[in-house]
Amino acid sequence: MGRSTLRDVAERSGLSITTVSHVVNDVPGKRIPVATRERVRVAVAELQYTPNRLAQGLRLQRSNTLGFVNDRIATSPHAGRTILGAQDAAAEHGSLLLMVNSGDDADLENREIRALLDRQVDGIVYAAEYHRLLTPPAVLRGVPTVLLDARSTVVGFSGVVPDEVGGAMTAVRELIDHGHRRIGFVTNSMDVPATRLRLEGFKRALRTARRTFRTAMVVSDLSEAQGGHRAAAALLDRPEPIRPTALFCYNDRMAMGAYQAAAERGLRIPQDLSIVGFDDQEIISAGLRPGLTTVALPHYEMGRWAVATLLRGIDTEGKEPPRTEILPCPLVRRASVGPPPRS
Amino acid sequence: MGRSTLRDVAERSGLSITTVSHVVNDVPGKRIPVATRERVRVAVAELQYTPNRLAQGLRLQRSNTLGFVNDRIATSPHAGRTILGAQDAAAEHGSLLLMVNSGDDADLENREIRALLDRQVDGIVYAAEYHRLLTPPAVLRGVPTVLLDARSTVVGFSGVVPDEVGGAMTAVRELIDHGHRRIGFVTNSMDVPATRLRLEGFKRALRTARRTFRTAMVVSDLSEAQGGHRAAAALLDRPEPIRPTALFCYNDRMAMGAYQAAAERGLRIPQDLSIVGFDDQEIISAGLRPGLTTVALPHYEMGRWAVATLLRGIDTEGKEPPRTEILPCPLVRRASVGPPPRS
Repeated sequence: MGRSTLRDVAERSGLSITTVSHVVNDVPGKRIPVATRERVRVAVAELQYTPNRLAQGLRLQRSNTLGFVNDRIATSPHAGRTILGAQDAAAEHGSLLLMVNSGDDADLENREIRALLDRQVDGIVYAAEYHRLLTPPAVLRGVPTVLLDARSTVVGFSGVVPDEVGGAMTAVRELIDHGHRRIGFVTNSMDVPATRLRLEGFKRALRTARRTFRTAMVVSDLSEAQGGHRAAAALLDRPEPIRPTALFCYNDRMAMGAYQAAAERGLRIPQDLSIVGFDDQEIISAGLRPGLTTVALPHYEMGRWAVATLLRGIDTEGKEPPRTEILPCPLVRRASVGPPPRS
Repeated sequence: MGRSTLRDVAERSGLSITTVSHVVNDVPGKRIPVATRERVRVAVAELQYTPNRLAQGLRLQRSNTLGFVNDRIATSPHAGRTILGAQDAAAEHGSLLLMVNSGDDADLENREIRALLDRQVDGIVYAAEYHRLLTPPAVLRGVPTVLLDARSTVVGFSGVVPDEVGGAMTAVRELIDHGHRRIGFVTNSMDVPATRLRLEGFKRALRTARRTFRTAMVVSDLSEAQGGHRAAAALLDRPEPIRPTALFCYNDRMAMGAYQAAAERGLRIPQDLSIVGFDDQEIISAGLRPGLTTVALPHYEMGRWAVATLLRGIDTEGKEPPRTEILPCPLVRRASVGPPPRS
């Protein structure tokens, strides 16, 4: 059995790691009741805990608070899961998240990051609304920072993004494995990393299966239900020999529009048309009828990774080289994929 | 022109209110660069700012940090807007939010609230995932606290909730105004405040229009797309004379299921069937075809109200009596309501 840790004392005493840390380290200015101090002392005695002075030295310089900067959290329905992953990882290390929202306003963002630094945060998670390539603001230079759902244009920043290529390959492979040969791609017309990378995954999946990629099978539009409706309609209105029997959709919202286009044409899913989405935005994917087979974006996992990596970077004082982690997008099977109709 | 405020100095200097406050009040332990201090001094001189000693006295005891406790943020697609409203109101007062998530676990929640109190938060917003009646945890006694989307079972807590009755009346009135006489209510089978209050609104809207309320027109099921599909199907499969020409749905997710039930029966919206939802969860309401007319839950506004009320309570040292604010749910017209079909 190894030596007891601060976490053990916290568990034994039923108090937070922060509280225990303050008592053990006798942090000044903390109003901690006598009864609480006593609980900590009892647990320390029972566990024969002795503080790790090296860790303690680091800990004493810390606020055990991390800043979480988000550009446009409100517009993302994934915000909750991302934040939850970050909170869970922070809580496991006795840290809390101070949240600020920049609203895509650089001036506001600078002021808010300064407010976080004023509060002596140990480091900052800089979260993008969707997978982006970005230049972290200058005010973050020298501050331990990890990017979430983003890659940096400048060196020195770790970050985490979803495996867009792999996710798209998984989705398309599911269609190929069911026997589909004419697969359409309903995709986003906006030039963002996910657009390029999911197209790359679409092509790679075809190549791996020795199928020919045809640009005519790719239709782009706005990445929401109405855009998906228009793009799917364009593909489904083609004459029989070149009409797709399956659609891979850029996201679940576009897939929702594809369902509408199919219904208007009397096409049943999956008997007449198979559909795979991307995101696993459950309100849509589980709500559609039949349920949508899709690949899940790892929002919770990205939140966890960003905080864990930030804390490790602080522990090691930035001695680990920065890196970008690519997290997998697993397939979530529901009921929208079947074999192609016999023609 | 009145005397300059700390906010004026912050704007003039381009710094956060917190930073300016720390410099002006010479708060110990803040590592503020000399250049920043100089910027504040210049702005103070230019604006002839003199600190309000009373406000300053209060301010000095503060961390300018608020705790934001949420039970199950991740499962709510509204989380982003609620948090944004809270952040905006906090930022206007130079405060930041420390977020914790209790995951509906009372022990965890207690530990996390203690961690917030350890960090000397000025007060706490206690946010529920959906409109609930709850008993705030004992650890919050004596701590300035405002409930968000919740009412307290015990006295002493202010809170903010949506006007469920008024919202339902608005939705049903929209159908009545278009000439509908047979209006079905597809509602939630779970016994939560919104279920009771939206039913009350449904009845009141009928009574106001001198229509008879018939329990047979109310069908309950799970408050998601599949439940909405089943409940709507049950109403739409009735023989013509008692089949509704319009459906009021408990939320947009159930309305999504009602659209599916209508489509399967060859009923066009709004020509053959009118539908109104509740929530304005845009990913659904704007994504459905045709767009869903619905009433909006005031998530952003509730977030703002909770923080503004919490800060006012701290300023007045809790001398204002606690109260529950009921915020309106405005109608959002799209394209799912028309006159009833001629029979």
